Amino acid sequence: MHFIITLISSSISSGHNRVASRLLTAKPQRSTVPPFFNRQPPSMAGSEESLRKALAEKLSAVEAQGNAVRALKAAKASKPEIDAAIEALNNLKLDKSSIEKQLQAAVSGGDGDGALSREAFRQAAVNTLERRLFYIPSFKIYRGVAGLYDYGPPGCAVKSNVLTFWRQHFVLEENMLEVDCPCVTPEVVLKASGHVEKFTDLMVKDKKTGTCYRADHLLKDFCNDKLQKDLTISAEKAAELKHVLATLDDLSPDALGAKIKEYGITAPDTKNPLSDPYPFNLMFQTSIGPSGLSPGYMRPETAQGIFVNFKDLYYYNGNKLPFAAAQIGQAFRNEISPRQGLLRVREFTLAEIEHFVDPEDKSHPKYTEVADLEFLMFPREEQMSGQSAKKIRLGDAVSKGIVNNETLGYFIGRVYLFLSRLGIDKDRLRFRQHLANEMAHYAADCWDAEIECSYGWIECVGIADRSAYDLRAHSEKSSVPLVAAEKFAEPREVEKLVIAPVKKELGLAFKGNQKNVVEALEAMNEKEALEMKAALESKGEVEFYVCTLGKNVPIKRNMVSISKEKKKEHQRVFTPSVIEPSFGIGRIIYCLFEHSFYTRPSKAGDEQLNVFRFPPLVAPIKCTVFPLVQINSTRMLQKLFQSH
Amino acid sequence: MHFIITLISSSISSGHNRVASRLLTAKPQRSTVPPFFNRQPPSMAGSEESLRKALAEKLSAVEAQGNAVRALKAAKASKPEIDAAIEALNNLKLDKSSIEKQLQAAVSGGDGDGALSREAFRQAAVNTLERRLFYIPSFKIYRGVAGLYDYGPPGCAVKSNVLTFWRQHFVLEENMLEVDCPCVTPEVVLKASGHVEKFTDLMVKDKKTGTCYRADHLLKDFCNDKLQKDLTISAEKAAELKHVLATLDDLSPDALGAKIKEYGITAPDTKNPLSDPYPFNLMFQTSIGPSGLSPGYMRPETAQGIFVNFKDLYYYNGNKLPFAAAQIGQAFRNEISPRQGLLRVREFTLAEIEHFVDPEDKSHPKYTEVADLEFLMFPREEQMSGQSAKKIRLGDAVSKGIVNNETLGYFIGRVYLFLSRLGIDKDRLRFRQHLANEMAHYAADCWDAEIECSYGWIECVGIADRSAYDLRAHSEKSSVPLVAAEKFAEPREVEKLVIAPVKKELGLAFKGNQKNVVEALEAMNEKEALEMKAALESKGEVEFYVCTLGKNVPIKRNMVSISKEKKKEHQRVFTPSVIEPSFGIGRIIYCLFEHSFYTRPSKAGDEQLNVFRFPPLVAPIKCTVFPLVQINSTRMLQKLFQSH
Repeated sequence: MHFIITLISSSISSGHNRVASRLLTAKPQRSTVPPFFNRQPPSMAGSEESLRKALAEKLSAVEAQGNAVRALKAAKASKPEIDAAIEALNNLKLDKSSIEKQLQAAVSGGDGDGALSREAFRQAAVNTLERRLFYIPSFKIYRGVAGLYDYGPPGCAVKSNVLTFWRQHFVLEENMLEVDCPCVTPEVVLKASGHVEKFTDLMVKDKKTGTCYRADHLLKDFCNDKLQKDLTISAEKAAELKHVLATLDDLSPDALGAKIKEYGITAPDTKNPLSDPYPFNLMFQTSIGPSGLSPGYMRPETAQGIFVNFKDLYYYNGNKLPFAAAQIGQAFRNEISPRQGLLRVREFTLAEIEHFVDPEDKSHPKYTEVADLEFLMFPREEQMSGQSAKKIRLGDAVSKGIVNNETLGYFIGRVYLFLSRLGIDKDRLRFRQHLANEMAHYAADCWDAEIECSYGWIECVGIADRSAYDLRAHSEKSSVPLVAAEKFAEPREVEKLVIAPVKKELGLAFKGNQKNVVEALEAMNEKEALEMKAALESKGEVEFYVCTLGKNVPIKRNMVSISKEKKKEHQRVFTPSVIEPSFGIGRIIYCLFEHSFYTRPSKAGDEQLNVFRFPPLVAPIKCTVFPLVQINSTRMLQKLFQSH
Repeated sequence: MHFIITLISSSISSGHNRVASRLLTAKPQRSTVPPFFNRQPPSMAGSEESLRKALAEKLSAVEAQGNAVRALKAAKASKPEIDAAIEALNNLKLDKSSIEKQLQAAVSGGDGDGALSREAFRQAAVNTLERRLFYIPSFKIYRGVAGLYDYGPPGCAVKSNVLTFWRQHFVLEENMLEVDCPCVTPEVVLKASGHVEKFTDLMVKDKKTGTCYRADHLLKDFCNDKLQKDLTISAEKAAELKHVLATLDDLSPDALGAKIKEYGITAPDTKNPLSDPYPFNLMFQTSIGPSGLSPGYMRPETAQGIFVNFKDLYYYNGNKLPFAAAQIGQAFRNEISPRQGLLRVREFTLAEIEHFVDPEDKSHPKYTEVADLEFLMFPREEQMSGQSAKKIRLGDAVSKGIVNNETLGYFIGRVYLFLSRLGIDKDRLRFRQHLANEMAHYAADCWDAEIECSYGWIECVGIADRSAYDLRAHSEKSSVPLVAAEKFAEPREVEKLVIAPVKKELGLAFKGNQKNVVEALEAMNEKEALEMKAALESKGEVEFYVCTLGKNVPIKRNMVSISKEKKKEHQRVFTPSVIEPSFGIGRIIYCLFEHSFYTRPSKAGDEQLNVFRFPPLVAPIKCTVFPLVQINSTRMLQKLFQSH
């Protein structure tokens, strides 16, 4: 039978294609999985600790045996005696290097060559990507700018396909309201969202040259370096360094500065001393209009454009909840020292969804469609107890309360489907729950879709239940109520919990912290409030945790009145909760590049070929094979084309 | 026969759809064309001038006759005598108002109610657009920011469809190399392109409040106002104001300032005096990285990202010319005082093509495909002689040399097809050639696709032959040669024109202007150079126009040597010319909104309905009608769906 190979001509109906003349090496066969991806889950912390201990013991033994050999020689002992002692020493040395190798493997999270082959794999992939113009450093002829990249023709085609599929999978299938807002954002919006005050990284400066570094990066590099390369450190020291790594995000500027001093960390390039850490705002600042009086920023995320439009979008949706709005667009973060190629850049494409839902009903009508999906999940508890991610049925995670609610679960499932259909390897994709210290105080629950690539596990999608925080913040600053209402068919008699903080007493007791305490009291749910009421009645005083202060405060009976009142209500007005899946498109694309890449020898065997095997959905070039048919079947062929 | 109405479910194969529940009022019938669009081409300047004269005469006649009537009354003339005089006066007054109406119509460019119905039409369209969230002022709950708009769900769907079609029509069908570069751009790139120095508008400040205005806008408004509302100004004064309007873009800061003083123009809001005009750079400035030492700007166009990548793209294309690169992305211009809604904004989506071509061969292989198109063109000569745009066959425009070359002609044709297929009314679309004073000195030719909407004729696409300017500028500043080479099969003996300016003599003669003169001499084409050589040999000195100085300078025999030399060459190395079609997507969409909009009475006749009739290609909601079929034909239906 004869075949003709036909390239599907580029057509509007098949997304973004590129035609024949620029065909890349792309093979349909299954990838040769690079060695480091075959590795078992990292050894547990426990085994590493025992290895360190064993190594320390073995080192002492080697030293003792060495002394013994020297003593025998000095005492002119018999040759067999000395030889036996030397053999024992050599055996000890062999044991020692075996333990060293095991330890090396344990700390680098794989077999001993892991780090090396990771690096080599990445080099091969990145070289091919840059040579084939998938992406290139921006403004290269002017020696580039760190953290800025261009997508060249094939990269652009992949990106366009990923975004088209995203729009299809989320916006169209879920009937979301897409919006498209400007990047230039006035200060007032980002003050309300908290970005002007809090969107910072801690920075240190080389005291002599003024070069800037991210303080946590320097400390992280120091700890990792010490753990991986210095095998002589004690198990206690190793545990301390690991604790620092685990709590890095929680360190205050002072604590971070103290650690840098304690470890004697200096500027990496010059070894000069470093300044104390201080916060640097990551937003690109600019000025709107000619007067110089209207500060603005390039948006650090697209979400705020949706929140400020909530009122119009709610109206557009017929004043009904739930509904979701979505936005694809550029976001900007003026990183202190960008690294890791496409993974940490100063400008990137975000695709964000804000799903607005009644906080009292977070069920989702299509939840059953995803409940049977099973994939790698890494709940908080497994992380705390040093276990690894495991396959869990999504429906079980929700019913057991591991995932906070159905809607959050639904989006986790949809994100899983999106990423796996794109071509992300399911075995290198996990959903990791945020630890308590990673989450904002208002967040109900948060999961990251993490994809494993040569840089480790990379957060590519964040799926957070942000409760009512954002809408409340903009309501307050703009004085425009961003609320929803549920109208009752008949007026209802409701028993309402009334929490009335006595501001005067609270002011006397807590001075400047009064506002935080009032807000925390008002934010109590019914159960908490009734418990407090009971405790106050019985004991007269309770300890009350105020999360915005990060401590307990004593609440006395005269400081708050808690009661239940009966009222007739015609509607219930509330601030909707928002569930936010947020996609870093560049990170997803980079991981997709790595997951689609492999090398194989050429047929002659004399060279290594670099191959990208993309799923048709995202491939920058699409082609198909048709059987050779008689000329009068042309119409059938045309039909085939039209339907692809 | 029975019918079912079926909404095509949203599908990746049909671009961006939106489904049933948010259906807008959209009707398939032909639009009721709003009255002002029926108008004839504007009356020529000549008729307006004679009307002004006739009006002035009639005013004198009315005054004279009024005096006559008063005189007759004072003289107690007979009643019939007085009545006759009054009737004559009334007739004169009627004549006067008739001329006034005609003059009003002439200056507003239509029938007397033109300006009014334009305004009313726009109000109806814009109200519907904003109410239905096609677009809305950004950050509305914070009272917005001038010149920033959000696209809401239906607007976003239209925009997405327009961009998908653009990519299909240009990138895919023409096999262009698409790139995607960051918006944040380091200063060095925009210094090379000339934007840091020259991308400015002239601004004046209210001397008391500091409010900023665009100087040319104030002068333009003053002239238009005077011409339209003050019918008593003399024909000479009217001619002067029109001359000011025509030459507005050429006025120096001093000349502009002088006119503002001469006409006594004050701040529109406060009537306070104004400062002298001074340049304001329209780029949003920012700072890249934490040091504060790397100034950057938000790109004012996407083109520079393509130019700086020329070398890689040329290599990617197999070192062959011609080829085109394309980019869709955000661009930013910090307008002094944005107005006209979506037409003049501070952030907008541009879609730009840079087609690189051998300057010695600007033919285009697919030119014949567009040569027979016929549409409204407005060549330079017709504009200068006060005629209006007329239908010309594109092939004739190119062969007669009205359009500079085939490739430029080809893109004009492709742009025409793009816009008319989108749904732009062909009768309200014209291609206007730039006048000599509108073009940059390096441009070979430039045409704007202008679309008529309620704001008048709006430039929506610019199609310019920019010669080698951009690549040369970046070659010079980056020291990376951005050139192409044509390799000869056999080495060729070529006679080369060598223009060697004698810098020492030129320096002595022209001091600081030496560089401009040298560049202008080197830029001469062969014909000009040989003419100069002949003139220098015969007369010893010639007058030579240096465009960058805007004046003639005397060139003497010792200042330049011009000769022809024979050389063997293996290849020809040259800087490609670039032909740049640049699309303002927001402007096209706004015009499309207006061209798709009409109002009609409801069936009951008691209200006015606002209707958008979009072509299926761009419609935010797509639906189709299928015949009702038997249940066992479901599979056929499914097939139908799949193929749409």
